[in-house]
Amino acid sequence: LINGERLWNTLMEHGRIGGTAKGGVCRLALSELDGQGRDLFVHWCKEAGLEVRIDAIGNIFARREGTDPSRPVIAMGSHIDTQPTGGKFDGIYGVMAGLEVLRTLNDKGIQTKAPIEVIAWTNEEGSRFVPVMMGSGVFTGAFTLEHALAATDVDGLAVQDELRKIGYAGEVSPGQVPGGMFGAYFEAHIEQGPVLEAHELTIGVVPGALGQRWYDVVVTGQESHAGTTPMDLRHDALLAASRIVEKVNALGRHFAPYGRGTVGYMQVLPNSRNTIPGTVKFSVDIRALDDGDLLAMEADLKDFIAGLQKADARLQVDMKQVVYFPPCHFDEACIESVRAAAQALGLGHMDVVSGAGHDAVYVADVAPAGMIFVPCKDGISHNEAEDATPEHLAAGAHVLLNAVLKHAS
Amino acid sequence: LINGERLWNTLMEHGRIGGTAKGGVCRLALSELDGQGRDLFVHWCKEAGLEVRIDAIGNIFARREGTDPSRPVIAMGSHIDTQPTGGKFDGIYGVMAGLEVLRTLNDKGIQTKAPIEVIAWTNEEGSRFVPVMMGSGVFTGAFTLEHALAATDVDGLAVQDELRKIGYAGEVSPGQVPGGMFGAYFEAHIEQGPVLEAHELTIGVVPGALGQRWYDVVVTGQESHAGTTPMDLRHDALLAASRIVEKVNALGRHFAPYGRGTVGYMQVLPNSRNTIPGTVKFSVDIRALDDGDLLAMEADLKDFIAGLQKADARLQVDMKQVVYFPPCHFDEACIESVRAAAQALGLGHMDVVSGAGHDAVYVADVAPAGMIFVPCKDGISHNEAEDATPEHLAAGAHVLLNAVLKHAS
Ligand SMILES: NC(=O)NCCC(=O)O
Ligand SMILES: NC(=O)NCCC(=O)O
Repeated sequence: LINGERLWNTLMEHGRIGGTAKGGVCRLALSELDGQGRDLFVHWCKEAGLEVRIDAIGNIFARREGTDPSRPVIAMGSHIDTQPTGGKFDGIYGVMAGLEVLRTLNDKGIQTKAPIEVIAWTNEEGSRFVPVMMGSGVFTGAFTLEHALAATDVDGLAVQDELRKIGYAGEVSPGQVPGGMFGAYFEAHIEQGPVLEAHELTIGVVPGALGQRWYDVVVTGQESHAGTTPMDLRHDALLAASRIVEKVNALGRHFAPYGRGTVGYMQVLPNSRNTIPGTVKFSVDIRALDDGDLLAMEADLKDFIAGLQKADARLQVDMKQVVYFPPCHFDEACIESVRAAAQALGLGHMDVVSGAGHDAVYVADVAPAGMIFVPCKDGISHNEAEDATPEHLAAGAHVLLNAVLKHAS
Repeated sequence: LINGERLWNTLMEHGRIGGTAKGGVCRLALSELDGQGRDLFVHWCKEAGLEVRIDAIGNIFARREGTDPSRPVIAMGSHIDTQPTGGKFDGIYGVMAGLEVLRTLNDKGIQTKAPIEVIAWTNEEGSRFVPVMMGSGVFTGAFTLEHALAATDVDGLAVQDELRKIGYAGEVSPGQVPGGMFGAYFEAHIEQGPVLEAHELTIGVVPGALGQRWYDVVVTGQESHAGTTPMDLRHDALLAASRIVEKVNALGRHFAPYGRGTVGYMQVLPNSRNTIPGTVKFSVDIRALDDGDLLAMEADLKDFIAGLQKADARLQVDMKQVVYFPPCHFDEACIESVRAAAQALGLGHMDVVSGAGHDAVYVADVAPAGMIFVPCKDGISHNEAEDATPEHLAAGAHVLLNAVLKHAS
């Protein structure tokens, strides 16, 4: 069994980096604070005798050697970056649970046949830079290193420069693992949803994750005077954008219970109280359990936008897809290892589909992968009020240790 | 007659201050560029032998003495600040037309009985700071000097500090005019709407202006994860805000042809693609020809918002009125002076109600006031493409000279 108190203290100590007044964490990808969060993780890894390597997209791999050089590495991991209004558990829990597993093996002097690595993936959140799940996406070839390095934030700062500033532009070519690709990958994470809590269960066995499509949308109308321009002569970009927001939400509701439709980001120009908005830029995020549903949502949205443009020829709507991955089904053997571990430890468990994307979703493209969920308070995440109990977090790490040992022994 | 070429050249020279690549002007109130625009105006006034005074809210008064000390001043004016995507004529035309009138009187050696002043009012646009029409509002007592000085922009910078930075925090107490309040006030302005152009007429005689109410609205929902939060458990502040945008526009359409409803400003928090927005701040601007209609619009909007909150008890909507003035009816004698001047000069004219607020609307509370409109291209304003012809601009200034002389002689 892992040391639950050490895990909790480690999480609390790390949570001070970017800690907010409301008890959350704001540690945006590749910011100075992300750099500090990485430094502390690397420091702890070295303290635990792990060998650290950094790849060209800034992913951090910390390795504990095995006794059998022919065995592929068994990996664990998640991410250190957070949302602007993030919590103390999303991402960092999976990293620190992995570290705790290796510290436990050290304490007990357990040698594994396979090497074991704990990984911190770059920019999982996709809040500051798209694509989301950038580090694992480059690692697994979902998109190119060049594409990721060129991504910019709203201030025009590029991933490649921000990586260099914090000292995490590594040499290793992403996707290269000493000894070959992972034999298995496990990611522990808070559920970020309400299911486990509602069922009063401790462990979520994750069969897969919703498919996602993200878009950047730009609506161009015509700037004009809010007082002198009669309503029927307007080309109000914000009115059109508002109708698209309503539609995106309706799409999510239509595909209940697994459909999701969200506009999380919006920028209005010139953003002056008495000027009709001429340009509105916003994001669209749609998700579904079935790839066909996802396509149907996209088609419906495009029809709706075509209708808006038909009603007002001066209105221009550009919609560009920036993220896509299909619904993910994790590896049967990995899923079974998680379920068996929960069972063996006497922990109440159930299957929970992930509404969120995770690095494990990309890793599943190149290696057997599985996930372990633990409950979070009120199912709330991407919110400073995000919370989880020491007991649940320890239980998830026990399961992680157990599953990893099964594959690495 | 005034010198139309000099007026045009003066406008073009002044338009370089804050001039944009698209041919517009961005000279936000109390910015460094506003300071430069003021400096150039003051320089030209002194060159023309005018006596300049600045009041505590930064209004600039440039005075040409009359021969009869018992006569109250006849005033002209408008503003130097612009929208973020402003043009070369909105505001500055009325100031430079006033200067041109005084230059013409100088050229011709005409002495008037009454003193004449040309005025540049502070922050008419209300884009960077509310209340809108701030300088004339303080001058006429619509709100207090303290209220105006304490107003802040989105970066938290206050009017009082910004005034000081550009050197326009004057000593004169607003509302005090040597010799007593204006005998009459005339403001020349581009129409900013499509009416004169549609009728192929040169001069708009302005009987009055729409009433306005502006609000600051804050919608608070709950930040939450865009992937894991089922649609029916959301409290999406942007979805609620989008519905209010639709409603505000519907209110404007309902009170056609004079009703207006606009959301021009919006800020989304935390503004992250995969976080459901927890807070959305935005402006509402409603206008109507009739004060009763304006109140009905407000009541309807409040009902609508109450309905949103009833449907989702976790949603909080705070709505605070930040600007109100009733529909304005200009002084009959001033209106008649404008009409008579157009007639005498043989200029095609018609009555045009102003959809925009103007400093003249506040001045009308304390002195007889009137306005002169000239056409602008495609009726477009608050847009860098705003345009007007030298001939129309000269015609408006001829009318201004004629009307002012009638009252000052
Ligand atoms: N786990 C998580 O919050 N991932 C962010 C990517 C997503 O929005 O699904
Ligand atoms: N004339 C003008 O654009 N004034 C700004 C105030 C308003 O929005 O009516």
